[in-house]
Amino acid sequence: MRRFNFVLMFLLSTPFINAQKIMGFTESNAKSQLEWEKQFDAHLNAKNLDTWMQFLTSRPHHVGSVQGKANAEYMANLFRSWGYQTEIAGYHVLFPTPKTRVLELLGSKPYKAKLEESTLKEDKTSGQKSEQLPTYNIYSADGDVTAELVFVNRGVPADYDELEKMGVSVKGKIVIAKYGGSWRGIKPKVAYEHGAIGCIIYSDPEDDGYRAGDVYPEGPFRPKDGVQRGSVMDMPVYPGDPLTPGIGATKDARRLNREDVTTIMKIPVIPISYEDALPLLQSLNGPVAPAAWRGGLPVTYHVGPSKDKVHLKLQFNWDIKPLYNVIAKMQGTEFPDEWIIRGNHHDGWVNGATDPISGMVAEMEEARVIAEMIKKGFKLKRTVVYCAWDGEEPALLGSTEWAEHNQDELRKKAVAYINTDGNSRGFIGVGGSHSLEPFFNEIAEAVIDPQTGVSIKERRYANQMVNADKATRTRLMGNKNIKLSALGAGSDWSGFLQFLGIASLNLGFGGEGSGGEYHSIYDSYDHFTRFKDPGFQYGIALSKTAGRAMLRLANADVLPIDFNTFYKTVNDYVGELKTLLENTRAETEQENKMITDKLFDLAKDPKKGFQSPKPKGHVPYLNFSELENKMAELKTSAEEFQKIYVNGTQLSPEKRKELNAILFRVERALINDKGLPRRSWYKHQIYAPGFYTGYGVKTLPGIREGIEERNWKEAQDNIEVVAKTVEAYTSQVKQATSIVKPKTF
Amino acid sequence: MRRFNFVLMFLLSTPFINAQKIMGFTESNAKSQLEWEKQFDAHLNAKNLDTWMQFLTSRPHHVGSVQGKANAEYMANLFRSWGYQTEIAGYHVLFPTPKTRVLELLGSKPYKAKLEESTLKEDKTSGQKSEQLPTYNIYSADGDVTAELVFVNRGVPADYDELEKMGVSVKGKIVIAKYGGSWRGIKPKVAYEHGAIGCIIYSDPEDDGYRAGDVYPEGPFRPKDGVQRGSVMDMPVYPGDPLTPGIGATKDARRLNREDVTTIMKIPVIPISYEDALPLLQSLNGPVAPAAWRGGLPVTYHVGPSKDKVHLKLQFNWDIKPLYNVIAKMQGTEFPDEWIIRGNHHDGWVNGATDPISGMVAEMEEARVIAEMIKKGFKLKRTVVYCAWDGEEPALLGSTEWAEHNQDELRKKAVAYINTDGNSRGFIGVGGSHSLEPFFNEIAEAVIDPQTGVSIKERRYANQMVNADKATRTRLMGNKNIKLSALGAGSDWSGFLQFLGIASLNLGFGGEGSGGEYHSIYDSYDHFTRFKDPGFQYGIALSKTAGRAMLRLANADVLPIDFNTFYKTVNDYVGELKTLLENTRAETEQENKMITDKLFDLAKDPKKGFQSPKPKGHVPYLNFSELENKMAELKTSAEEFQKIYVNGTQLSPEKRKELNAILFRVERALINDKGLPRRSWYKHQIYAPGFYTGYGVKTLPGIREGIEERNWKEAQDNIEVVAKTVEAYTSQVKQATSIVKPKTF
Repeated sequence: MRRFNFVLMFLLSTPFINAQKIMGFTESNAKSQLEWEKQFDAHLNAKNLDTWMQFLTSRPHHVGSVQGKANAEYMANLFRSWGYQTEIAGYHVLFPTPKTRVLELLGSKPYKAKLEESTLKEDKTSGQKSEQLPTYNIYSADGDVTAELVFVNRGVPADYDELEKMGVSVKGKIVIAKYGGSWRGIKPKVAYEHGAIGCIIYSDPEDDGYRAGDVYPEGPFRPKDGVQRGSVMDMPVYPGDPLTPGIGATKDARRLNREDVTTIMKIPVIPISYEDALPLLQSLNGPVAPAAWRGGLPVTYHVGPSKDKVHLKLQFNWDIKPLYNVIAKMQGTEFPDEWIIRGNHHDGWVNGATDPISGMVAEMEEARVIAEMIKKGFKLKRTVVYCAWDGEEPALLGSTEWAEHNQDELRKKAVAYINTDGNSRGFIGVGGSHSLEPFFNEIAEAVIDPQTGVSIKERRYANQMVNADKATRTRLMGNKNIKLSALGAGSDWSGFLQFLGIASLNLGFGGEGSGGEYHSIYDSYDHFTRFKDPGFQYGIALSKTAGRAMLRLANADVLPIDFNTFYKTVNDYVGELKTLLENTRAETEQENKMITDKLFDLAKDPKKGFQSPKPKGHVPYLNFSELENKMAELKTSAEEFQKIYVNGTQLSPEKRKELNAILFRVERALINDKGLPRRSWYKHQIYAPGFYTGYGVKTLPGIREGIEERNWKEAQDNIEVVAKTVEAYTSQVKQATSIVKPKTF
Repeated sequence: MRRFNFVLMFLLSTPFINAQKIMGFTESNAKSQLEWEKQFDAHLNAKNLDTWMQFLTSRPHHVGSVQGKANAEYMANLFRSWGYQTEIAGYHVLFPTPKTRVLELLGSKPYKAKLEESTLKEDKTSGQKSEQLPTYNIYSADGDVTAELVFVNRGVPADYDELEKMGVSVKGKIVIAKYGGSWRGIKPKVAYEHGAIGCIIYSDPEDDGYRAGDVYPEGPFRPKDGVQRGSVMDMPVYPGDPLTPGIGATKDARRLNREDVTTIMKIPVIPISYEDALPLLQSLNGPVAPAAWRGGLPVTYHVGPSKDKVHLKLQFNWDIKPLYNVIAKMQGTEFPDEWIIRGNHHDGWVNGATDPISGMVAEMEEARVIAEMIKKGFKLKRTVVYCAWDGEEPALLGSTEWAEHNQDELRKKAVAYINTDGNSRGFIGVGGSHSLEPFFNEIAEAVIDPQTGVSIKERRYANQMVNADKATRTRLMGNKNIKLSALGAGSDWSGFLQFLGIASLNLGFGGEGSGGEYHSIYDSYDHFTRFKDPGFQYGIALSKTAGRAMLRLANADVLPIDFNTFYKTVNDYVGELKTLLENTRAETEQENKMITDKLFDLAKDPKKGFQSPKPKGHVPYLNFSELENKMAELKTSAEEFQKIYVNGTQLSPEKRKELNAILFRVERALINDKGLPRRSWYKHQIYAPGFYTGYGVKTLPGIREGIEERNWKEAQDNIEVVAKTVEAYTSQVKQATSIVKPKTF
């Protein structure tokens, strides 16, 4: 669903890793594991990825489509044929599709939006009109509205602050926003909060059209009538089937009435192409848009309102549709009730080659080779669970319903969840639970980049250095550690990480396969094999990377959890929040003084009707001490554990089992059952999608969003909540230490 | 000629200025001066500016035009009628005009460039076709070339480094560059240095066309066929008539052969509109241009080369044309041989309303009211010289020839030169000799902004604060001092400041009258009065500001020169250079290590033919000690003078005269007769236009450009030269101190 965000961040801590050893493995087990990994690499076959992608992308395969079901069965049959215990786990979810879509500009220069993508002779699946989902935003409201238009840039809260300065209101208006800058569902949500009655989202050519590069079919970028479909459900509140929050959407599940659902948009929303956007933007009067708002269309971007009105009419079939997850298990020989879960979604918006099939086929090839190895005598200590999720695109439906439905079992059995999604040429990107950071770095040293012959870790470092500014280069020089980014929203980890507290990783390659096919009919096999990953080299690299994560987690003698990195990362977050509060205070005081000194009044152009900002309230000092004390305790405990952990693999089998029982559930300590303020579904206290960013992660979200939204009471309350969370985590660390500590009497 | 560059810089030092006093005036003289200034303000009349602008812009008035001569005579008559001793100082200069202009794209999609601006019914002078200079770059070479096209972004040296990385050469090619990023003459010069055989410069709509705002006549910005004319002479080598460097271009002056002139471009150069640029850019193949290179046209910007060839044919009439400076003197009653010179050019590229007439009419109104005051009993101690320069646009011809021709007299008599040029609504911008900084700040406190009623200094501060980032706000908060920007090239100060060492100021308002009329037929009375300064409010504000500078310099008991600010500013420059050298060394080492570590090789996309950079040579340590010692001495001397300077106005008339004799020539000490490396015409050791930036100033240019161009010997040599310059300056300060020091025996 989400395009991989190559956040280039590093921490200075990198534990020394010996290439001859593997974290959590005894020396002899490490040796045999490494030999099996060589076998694993050797048997991965790019031709399989190609063959499977051809089938899986042959026709549109969204939720409820014929091909979607056929794909699930095709994959289930393959998993079964390789020896996996395979089931199709079906759910029944609200999946609206459009009945009526009308968007037109009225007035003297009327224009009726085309709302349709062209068939291209260079793209063999682009003409499958009868099976394609039309261009729409799922979970838009029904509506029939006519109003003036206002351009709101990306449509995030800061843009409305600017609009207020310009004296432009969206109340009773239809807004038009550019894609990008936030998850798309934020745009109509914030528009609605400001009184707008309709929302249009368009793909500006600056972002992924001709200004980014040559357009399809000449190049990979979005052609003039390409449209980005996608969900606008309010997923930062909860993902999954809107009718069944917190429980599995089984046939007989108790469902909410649609009217009571909070996550469905309150106003009609439609995505359009830049060809359709052009006349709308040309109709705008009012102030010229601020420089940062202007895009790549050959017009003067105005804010509006328009003189002429826009008519938007949308009606949907609000059907319940079946979805089909494929769940394929290979039982562990030693710890069958410890599960290493691997997932990628299989539904696409249309033919979905890059998103999601590029990651799906890499996952399948991993599973195939592991099964092959098992036939040759390889043993998995723990159970591996290979999943192909349906319904990720509308709202992470398949993975969320499965996680909710199986929550009790997963709480007991899940060790980790490894997610992938779209994949293309370039550099490894990874986000996840920071206790897995050293573990992942070890893997990234072992996987060789197909284009350069160095490790994917080396190549990523090279890319970061070359693209960094000078100050960042100085800071990074020689530090090759891959700092995991924190996970917000964007793909199927949410149910596992943020609802259940299962340690998670999300992996993917990218950076050399950019394009503008995203969620359009042009995300096809033809496009993928020309521009994204010709020859599936990086599909194989992904199999190697995620496959190693699976193999090592499955077979580790002691699970490779690192408390120290977790501590350091969270401690950095705490430092960030203190700085954020201080900066907010300093900026507020500064701006308030500037307002008192009339600087905004004096600086503004009297020929423009701009408003000076209003003074903001005082920023109080918050009491961080409890959290800081708990962090200090965690530090001591984590360091103590680390000191004696080298002996972990030499423990007796019973002790190891005891220790693993702690390690594999330690992420669970980060869950608070009450969840986050205003969204109880999100229970993880360290990572969550931003309430007003969507994809963009908020770390220590309860505190951070309190500060950002100037809700000081909420921020202070959540400092206490996080302190208790850290305390609970520390108690797990202490328990782990007591297990590994040699008895002294 | 140059659009005013609002460099927002501040220093932390601001001498306390008492509003009841004026720098350099005895108390009683200050009182009467302030009363006369009130009179001065009261008699300024915006209607005069309007009337004169209507006449002066009524027809095209470039060098050699009928209207240009008529304008000189019209102004001379006015000056004369007010009581000024007025002459028209004529020179004879090389002023080529086009005979043939052909630009066409050959091949399968041929396109012949229009090279012409449209008549608009909303602009009454836009249709004066027979008198308009066609769109061209003066001092382009004759040429007839046919070659592939390469897009070089702004065409500055750094862009060629990027091209090299992309493996694209301009050798034997025609380049197309965007306007902006440097003075336009740099573009063909650097292109030629890299082997190009022709150069096209176009106005990208991102810079001053539709992406900047609504286009003319709807709004002020450049319409699709608007073209920026302008000079491409290599003025960083020397300005003025190319045939007579260093001497006045009198009828019988000894002239160079045109073939021996170094400042005329070696390749043909033509400016075009974005309408004409579009098919050329569409013809480009090769790599997609880096993100920062892309403009606002609806195409994918490619670097090239093009598949199809471009044909460029230019031929010029290489005529010698007469030009007409107007020089109007009002004799000083006490010190007739101390001149305060005021100048603005009167020639335009076409009808030139903003550039230059908006500044010219403000200057005229100053002169008129001063003459009126004299009739009422006001006395000027010193002589004021009001000048209207011809031929600024092609190469600062009029002012430079006059300065060269009268150099001996000017060296003896000139106290200061105050320049203005285009003027529009907004905020005061000022550059110049830093010894005049406190003097100018005092004036900026006295002039009231017409739109807000606060001083122009207050309003400028408000604008800086509002537009600054948070860190800059913190730094600036409460510091309202106007830091003068340093002067590079761009208008008529060069002959005075950089050739003769006469302390100079350049003043203008702007920031609320932006547009895209620059050097096109649309820089007209109609455009100006709609978008630039309706009602001429800021014309009057300019008269008040520059007029005060004239009046105070003319009547000061002791000239308001501040050594301390000069010292602090230069000392900051020395600090900058040391940091520049250190940073260059650190960056070189860093990049060389990255090359050795193969990071560029590893990071690059193997599907693109990009080149990794080559290692650069070692950056030596330079010996700054001599300069630092001289700076320390200057500091001591300047502080000593400052300490006793408060008594300056209480000196005996003889002592004052002695002191003034030092003060008015102290800027001369910054001149080194040998001039700068590779350009001996530029003799000022503190300020010069950049050899590779043009407009962009280089401070301590001998040293700075040595470092920037990695010519370490030149940099070291110039440290010694600047040290000697500072020493000479200090000796003047010491002499001044010895005059003001009370005798102790």
